[in-house]
Parts: sequence; structure tokens; C-alpha cells
Amino acid sequence: MENKFEELRKRCEEMAALGSAGALLGWDQNVYMPPKGAQARGRTLAVISELAHHKLTCRETGTLIADLYDWAQAKGYDSFEAAFLRAIKRDYDQEVKIPAELVKELSLATTASFEAWHKARKASDFAMFAPHLEKVAELNLRKAEALGYDKSPYDALLDLYDAGMRREKLDGIFAELAAGLTPVIKAINERADKVSSAPFKGDFAPAAQLGLALEIARALGYDLEAGRQDLAAHPFSSGILSPDDVRITTRTQADWLPACVYASIHETGHALYEQGFPGEFAFTPLASAASLGVHESQSRFWENLIGRSRPFAAWALPLYRKHFPGKFDSLTPEDIYRAANRSEASLIRVEADEVTYNLHIALRYEIETQLLDRSLKIKDAPELWNAKMKEYFGITPSNDAEGILQDVHWGYGMIGYFPSYTIGNLISAQLYAAIRKDLPGMDAMIEKGEFAPLLAWLRRKVHAQGRKYQPEELLDRAAGQKLSVKPFVEYIRTKYSALYGF
Amino acid sequence: MENKFEELRKRCEEMAALGSAGALLGWDQNVYMPPKGAQARGRTLAVISELAHHKLTCRETGTLIADLYDWAQAKGYDSFEAAFLRAIKRDYDQEVKIPAELVKELSLATTASFEAWHKARKASDFAMFAPHLEKVAELNLRKAEALGYDKSPYDALLDLYDAGMRREKLDGIFAELAAGLTPVIKAINERADKVSSAPFKGDFAPAAQLGLALEIARALGYDLEAGRQDLAAHPFSSGILSPDDVRITTRTQADWLPACVYASIHETGHALYEQGFPGEFAFTPLASAASLGVHESQSRFWENLIGRSRPFAAWALPLYRKHFPGKFDSLTPEDIYRAANRSEASLIRVEADEVTYNLHIALRYEIETQLLDRSLKIKDAPELWNAKMKEYFGITPSNDAEGILQDVHWGYGMIGYFPSYTIGNLISAQLYAAIRKDLPGMDAMIEKGEFAPLLAWLRRKVHAQGRKYQPEELLDRAAGQKLSVKPFVEYIRTKYSALYGF
Repeated sequence: MENKFEELRKRCEEMAALGSAGALLGWDQNVYMPPKGAQARGRTLAVISELAHHKLTCRETGTLIADLYDWAQAKGYDSFEAAFLRAIKRDYDQEVKIPAELVKELSLATTASFEAWHKARKASDFAMFAPHLEKVAELNLRKAEALGYDKSPYDALLDLYDAGMRREKLDGIFAELAAGLTPVIKAINERADKVSSAPFKGDFAPAAQLGLALEIARALGYDLEAGRQDLAAHPFSSGILSPDDVRITTRTQADWLPACVYASIHETGHALYEQGFPGEFAFTPLASAASLGVHESQSRFWENLIGRSRPFAAWALPLYRKHFPGKFDSLTPEDIYRAANRSEASLIRVEADEVTYNLHIALRYEIETQLLDRSLKIKDAPELWNAKMKEYFGITPSNDAEGILQDVHWGYGMIGYFPSYTIGNLISAQLYAAIRKDLPGMDAMIEKGEFAPLLAWLRRKVHAQGRKYQPEELLDRAAGQKLSVKPFVEYIRTKYSALYGF
Repeated sequence: MENKFEELRKRCEEMAALGSAGALLGWDQNVYMPPKGAQARGRTLAVISELAHHKLTCRETGTLIADLYDWAQAKGYDSFEAAFLRAIKRDYDQEVKIPAELVKELSLATTASFEAWHKARKASDFAMFAPHLEKVAELNLRKAEALGYDKSPYDALLDLYDAGMRREKLDGIFAELAAGLTPVIKAINERADKVSSAPFKGDFAPAAQLGLALEIARALGYDLEAGRQDLAAHPFSSGILSPDDVRITTRTQADWLPACVYASIHETGHALYEQGFPGEFAFTPLASAASLGVHESQSRFWENLIGRSRPFAAWALPLYRKHFPGKFDSLTPEDIYRAANRSEASLIRVEADEVTYNLHIALRYEIETQLLDRSLKIKDAPELWNAKMKEYFGITPSNDAEGILQDVHWGYGMIGYFPSYTIGNLISAQLYAAIRKDLPGMDAMIEKGEFAPLLAWLRRKVHAQGRKYQPEELLDRAAGQKLSVKPFVEYIRTKYSALYGF
């Protein structure tokens, strides 16, 4: 058995090496690749991912998994071997169920739909994208059928991004969120000018923005010996090979400082997670996030729960002054705290604040679940979009580009991905509540820039587990809770009622 | 047969994608990788290269090649299919002969010898490296036996880097070079201060050096839409995926301008070659150099034959003035020409000028051939090194670090690689002579910075052929000649007797 396990490890090492190559090819594509390289790069990435897919789904891998599974579980649920086999079995079982023919069809349809989405958004014309979205929904339904499910085909897709998540649970979550947040949003809307973000508007030199963002990232614990900061049009983080090479990217916007600073804290949160995987997990299926939702919980934790807190503002003000001499002299920590927490119902998800963000997700969730079970006709989707915008935020997009065409996800062929964002937000608030109990002096630490105890807590409870446990299991172990909406809504209500005075 | 060819193409596409991933992993390793990523990167590269090796040497590939070879040749010697099969058959035949066990032993020995070389060079103590060099020689001999040869085991190794090259031929080449160059070197040594490189010494801002180097690269025809310039400790060029993504790197040395400018022209020469491969060769074994020697001929052509010519100096002087205001005001084109052509017998190969360079190679050739056939004892190698240095240059290294330990190649386990440098130099002079005949107004063009006709000539005769032909075949088609020493020695003698007055 030990020999077979070594054989499986070697196969997983090959998949990991291909994954690392793919990650670097993708990072480079967004950061340094010369323009003429684009077409060949797409082809290279497709081949590399097909090689990895084949390595995972081939008969030899399947046989090894079948032979080793019970042997590994017998080593104890928490053992490396048991977790290793659980993770690779899950990947194998999923990928092996999707017929090669469907993978190919999806890939072709996605290429076409991505292009169509681009053109449609440019023309702000949903009709140009509609037939492609129809095809994407149809192929995703076939994918769900191939994967299998108990109650809803949407469950099968959800499970790809967040193991164990179900539509039944999400219906309740989004309803509870809408009920909890809509009154807060309404109250804020009525007091819009109580909080000003003026301190972050102005003219900020790009190089200084990057310097500030990097100084914050390092202070939070980001290890530049195992990472780097680069510029990208759309910020992302990428574990080229976690935990030893985990990179962040950011961008600058001269007249709006948070576009760099908070995007960077967000990506740093992702990167801290992957830099915290145990070294012995490298080149195994365990050097990975427990789920997309858990990954997002780490970025949101640092970006919002910490980065937009009052003690963080007090700590950060001298840094703002250092990097932008003169610009922040007359401001107080409270000014910075308020500037970082102005909330405003807006049309665009990626620009949404922490209060409104999850309702952007709720409406996408509603649309994509209905598209998948065919209870919503494609042509009626923009109408539902706009109606939901009105209901949640009291505003209506003036065209499709700032409405239903704003996100790339469906164009990429991804259905079932959006909820991860909300799951991440909920988990971040649950972890925050748990940490506060364990670290009573937390605010004072943050005010002094002592982030190490926070990071150590996350490292121990979350990062060091890699992908050993299912997401809800991990949350239970870390915070003693099931996934829950309450801590998040509580956090929002308390914070924003104080900020806006309602 | 068409179907089988498609199948083989798909396999080659996979190898090319793995090759491209490996190239990017290697480029990044030297340019942007964070330090802690080093170990995992080595492991990733090893896995990727093993996957490519397996893809090439597996039975399925062998059967396809055997089935298709005659069919492809029947399409005509110059056809795409015929050249494709010749190239892949050559790769297959070579790699399949080397037993997996030997590949592994070589890889382990090379890792150890590379480390030992590093330490030995630092300590300047050949004895620390000697047992590793012995092992490297032994394993290379076994590799040669596995590959097979007619006359000398060295031929089998040579053939890996320069198809068709033989020791018999090289013995003659190096003897002719030594006979032709030694008197020139002696004459120069006696007139050392006739030529001054003072204009290139001083204090040159790194950013301006990079700007100048890039402007020259673009003027020569380097396409930045399909390439980029980065910094690296040891300059190199890398075809991430030729012809659409071919990158150069360079470095700066504040007190010595040629370290950036001429290294950059050299790498640009390599990159121009790969940017000139036909697009339809991408992802096939034909998107590759005809040999290492031909690759080197392209870098040396631009670096030396063009970059150190009198009309080039006239064209470049205004650029020097532009990038370093004030520093070049009082200098004439002739000053620049002379500064770029000071020759000096020196200890270190990588710093050697075009006159002395090939004799550095000659002495390495002599040592490595004798090590391989065991006519030289490892412990006597430093003595032979020093004796040859005395014979060729009239100087003696004061220690092993500036003597036999200066190059990494043997530490890397490579025997039979060095001659490529000389072959490249010879070919560059032969191509130069051929172009002069075809482009009578060449000097006037260069003086005006019109490099396009030169590049077009190389594109047509060399670059566009990719790896369709064996190196000497390519040279014959391009210049109507066999590999020959005369044009190079003639070029050196004429140029340097005029410069130094003998």
C-alpha cells in the first residue's frame, strides 16, 4: 500500500506541477505577456489543463484511489493520508463524471460566449449575448446531470466551488440576508451625506499608492520572500506554488485611493491564506483552499473586518501621511475610518461596499438558479435584474452594460460560482467573532499594527488545514459554528447604525 | 495517414505546450520568482521536463513516427511534413536511446556537481570539484555509448547540440583557428595601448543604459509586441513560444557600458532568430533553431559583425549622446568604433573579445575531449588548462576560480556544448561575407540605421527555415558554403591589423 500511495503521490505531484505551470502562464498573461503572445498562450493553457485533466481522470489514477481509500481512512480521519485520499477522490469523482465530449462542447461554447459577452457589453445589448447564455445554461444543466444531485441540478454546480453547499441552504441564506440588509440600506440611503469619502479622493501618485499598499501588505504578514506585487488591469492573487510562491497584483486609480489600497488588502488576504499552507502539503491536493468561499472569507476578513475597522484607521493614518506628504495632515483617524466606510447603493458589483455587496450576489443567484431550472426565460432576465435592483437598492440600471451584462462569469460559462462571494463574507464575520473571543485585546493590537496574533489564529485554525476538511467542517473546527447569516448582519447593523446614526 | 499525422501533431503540440511552460518557468526563475520559490520551482521544472520526455519517448509516439516517416518524405524533401518527421524522428531516436536509469543518475549527479562546482569556485579549489567532474565524464561516456557513434564517443554528445558535427572536423577547425589567431593575439598584445575603450568607462545611469539598449534592439528589428526586455543577473533570451513571445534580458554595470549594450545586442540577435520562425511552425518541432551553433551565429552576427562595425559606430553615436547627455559630445564615430573593438588577452571567457574568444573554447574542447576518452586524468586538468592559457594568450590564471572553475557547463553535466560557441562565430562570419555580396550598399545602410534589408536576408535564408534542415545544410543553402574557418580568421585579421597597425 505504501508503494501505491507513493505512486499516487507521484501522479498528484505531476498534476500539481502542471497546475503550477498553468498558474504561472495565467499570471504572466495578465501581467507581463507581450500582446502577440495571446493566441498561443490560450492554446498552451488549454493543452496544459487537458494534460492535467487526463492525468486525474485516467484509469490508473482511479484504480489507485479505489485501492488506497480505505487504507488511508484507517490511518485516522485527521491523518495526512486520509485527507489526501478524501481530496483526490472528490476531484476524481467529479471530473471523471463529465464526459470528454461535454468538456469540449463547454470549452467551445465558453470561448464563443466570452467573445459575445465582450461585444454585447460594449454595445450594451443583452440580445447579442442571450443565445450564448442560453447555451451556457443548457450545457451547465447537462454538466449537472452528469455530476448527479439529490434535489436541484444547481446543487451539483455549487458543489464544484463549495463542497457540501446546497441550494436549499442558500435560499434561506439569501432570504435572511435580504431581510436583514434591506432596512439597513434604506436607512443609509436616507442619510447618504452623513459619511464622506472625500479624504480618499484627490490626486494620488501611482508609485506612492503601490508603496503604501505594499507596506500595509507586509505589515499584515505577507511574506515578500515568498511573493511579489505587480500591476494588473484586474487585481488578483495567484498561488504559483503554495506556500512558497504566492503573488498579488494590484492597480492604481489616481483619483480614488481605495481602488489600490483596499484591492491590495483583499488580495493580500487571499495570499496570506496560501502562504499559510503547510510546506508538506506542497505538490499534493491538500495545498489548496477548503473552498472558494473559505478563500473569499480570508480576503474579506482583512479587507473589511480588519481593514475598515476603527483601530486600523488609527494605525494607517501615519502611513497615509508618510506616503502622501501633506495630504492627510489635517485628518483624524475618525475621518479615515468614516471615509473607508461610506456605503452607497450602486449599480456595479465590483465597486459595491460591504453593506450592499451580498444583495448584488442575491440577485445573480436568483437569476442563475431560475435560468438553470428553466423557470425564467432568457429574454426576461434583464427585466428581473432591474426589478431586483429596484427592490434591493431603489435604483435601476439605465442600460444592460451597467445591468445584467456587467459580470464576466456567465460569459465564462460559470454558473454556481457567485454564491462563493457571499459565503466568504458570512464566514469572515463568523471568524471575526470567534477571534474577538480568543483575543480580547485585539483592537489595541490592531491600533499598534500588531497583526501577528490575528494571523497566527487564522494560520492555526484555517490556513494550516489547507484542504483537509470540507468547508463547513473547517468552520466548525475553527469557530465552533455552522455557516450562519447572523454574525454578518449583526456586524453590519451595529457598525452602520453607529456610522450613519439610525 | 493524414489522421495519423494529425495525431502526431497533437502529441507534438502537447510537447510544445510543456516546452513553453518550462520556458516560462525558467524565465520567471531568473527574472521575477521570489527567493523561497526556488526549491519548488526546481521540482516543478523536473516534473514538466519528465512529462515532455515521456510524451516524446513513449511507444505511441514511436509507432506514429515509424508509420509516417516514409509517407512524409514522399511529399518532397522540402515539404512541411517531411521536415516535421525528420525533426521529430531525430529527437525521438536520441531520447529513446538513453535509459531512464541513466537519465535519473545524470540528474542526481548534476544536482550534486552543480552544488560542488559552486562551492569549489567560491573556495577556488579544483580538488573539491574533481570527483564530481569525474562522475560527470563517466556518465557522459555512458550516455555516448547509449546514443552510439562511429568514431569517437564525443561525437555522440556533440550531435546533441549540433547535428552532424564530428570531433574529426572540430580537431581541424580548432587547429586552424589556433594557427590563424595566435599571431594576431601576439601582435595585439605587443600594441595593447593602440586602442582605447575609455569612452565606455565612466558612470552610466542604469535606466539610461536600458533605454539605449532597448532603442538599439528595436532599431535592429526586435518586435516588442512579441517580446519584452527585463533585467537578469546573467543575460539570456528565451523563446516562451516562438515566434510570438520571445523575450530578452539584460543587466547594467554602471562603470562599463558594453556590459549592457553589447549583451543586449547579443540577446537581441538570438531573439530576432526566433521571432523570425514562420507562424505555422508554432507548436511543432520545426519552431526551433537548426542547432545551438546556428543560434549563436545569429547573436554573434549582430553583436560583433554588425554591432562592432565602423558604420554601426557612426549610427550609434547620436544615440549614445541622446541617452547620456554631455558624455559623448567630444567623441567621433571612430572613437566609438575603436572603443568597441579593444582586444585584450584575458582570463575569463565570458568577458573575452571576438579575437580571443574562440581560443578559450579551444582549450575547453581539448580538455573535455581528453576527459571523455580518459587520456587526461582529472587531477591533471588544471595544469593543462594553465598551459594552454599560456600558449594561446601568454597569461596564467593565479587560481582555479579564474581558471578551470570559471564556467558552469561541466558543473551542469554538459560535455560537448562548448564548441557550439565557436561554430556560431564561424557561421556568423560566413553569413556576413554572403550578405555583403548580396547587399553591396550594406555599410551605407547600417550607417543610416537601415537594418531591415539585413534582417530580411537573414529571415529569408535562415530564420524562416526554422529547423527544417541540418545546420550545415542550412549554411550551404544560405551561403553556398560548408562550415569554414577562413572567413572568420580573414575578418579578424583584416579588422585588427588595421585597428592595431600590424
